[in-house]
Amino acid sequence: MNESKDEKYMKAALAEAQKAYDRQEIPVGAVVVCKDLIIAKAHNLTETLNDPTAHAEMQAITAAANWLGGKYLTGCIIYVTLEPCAMCAGAIGWSQASGLVYGARDEKKGYTLVKGQLLHPKTKIVKGVMEKECRDLMLNFFKSKR
Amino acid sequence: MNESKDEKYMKAALAEAQKAYDRQEIPVGAVVVCKDLIIAKAHNLTETLNDPTAHAEMQAITAAANWLGGKYLTGCIIYVTLEPCAMCAGAIGWSQASGLVYGARDEKKGYTLVKGQLLHPKTKIVKGVMEKECRDLMLNFFKSKR
Repeated sequence: MNESKDEKYMKAALAEAQKAYDRQEIPVGAVVVCKDLIIAKAHNLTETLNDPTAHAEMQAITAAANWLGGKYLTGCIIYVTLEPCAMCAGAIGWSQASGLVYGARDEKKGYTLVKGQLLHPKTKIVKGVMEKECRDLMLNFFKSKR
Repeated sequence: MNESKDEKYMKAALAEAQKAYDRQEIPVGAVVVCKDLIIAKAHNLTETLNDPTAHAEMQAITAAANWLGGKYLTGCIIYVTLEPCAMCAGAIGWSQASGLVYGARDEKKGYTLVKGQLLHPKTKIVKGVMEKECRDLMLNFFKSKR
């Protein structure tokens, strides 16, 4: 069976999430893709860095903008294993990324729980890509913590 | 006339905002205060760093958490010259800061335009401290850009 592009890049985001898991961090991973090239990879590091802003998406956006040499991610797609929180959605909004693809829903902290324009109006959103794998990684993590 | 504590710390945030102005950055400054000590200072650096996430508040939170050695800013007050955007309000929410004090309203991008819980429910909010000075700095900046 052919793997879709979205699945291919979500697998890369999942590999990042696994790195977070292995560090005892909540397993969320993100990659930024520009012209079919992964230009940034990151995973949640809030515990390791003692930094509440060190979500996977925030670091991926900073790294991608640095790679591009400009603060806008127009033409880029951000892949993230979990629905972004409001902070990260706001950052994706400022970046003007052309696309956001996420895996699992975040029923407690997801940005879709907030009403208002967080993302840029032109950002195309795809959700539920490899949802089960993304969600299972989170569920396993929290189960292991009990 | 006695200067209030809020004014004292907002002046420090304004001094940071002036540094941003001098770098041709949108003039927003922030400081984090813990037990009457300024533990972090920052100003907007989105252009200088080519990073859409480099708002004053984000950097101040990262620096304060680093100073404290933990990701929570419980007991800290964040002073910022401009009403935070949704991204920054989300970050302040994750930090669980005990207080947020801001100067000027942001009528286009302020977090109060978004409906939903961005800040932590226990964060005490004070607005309008040195509002005129904070707003005038922004107005002068945009006037100078015309």
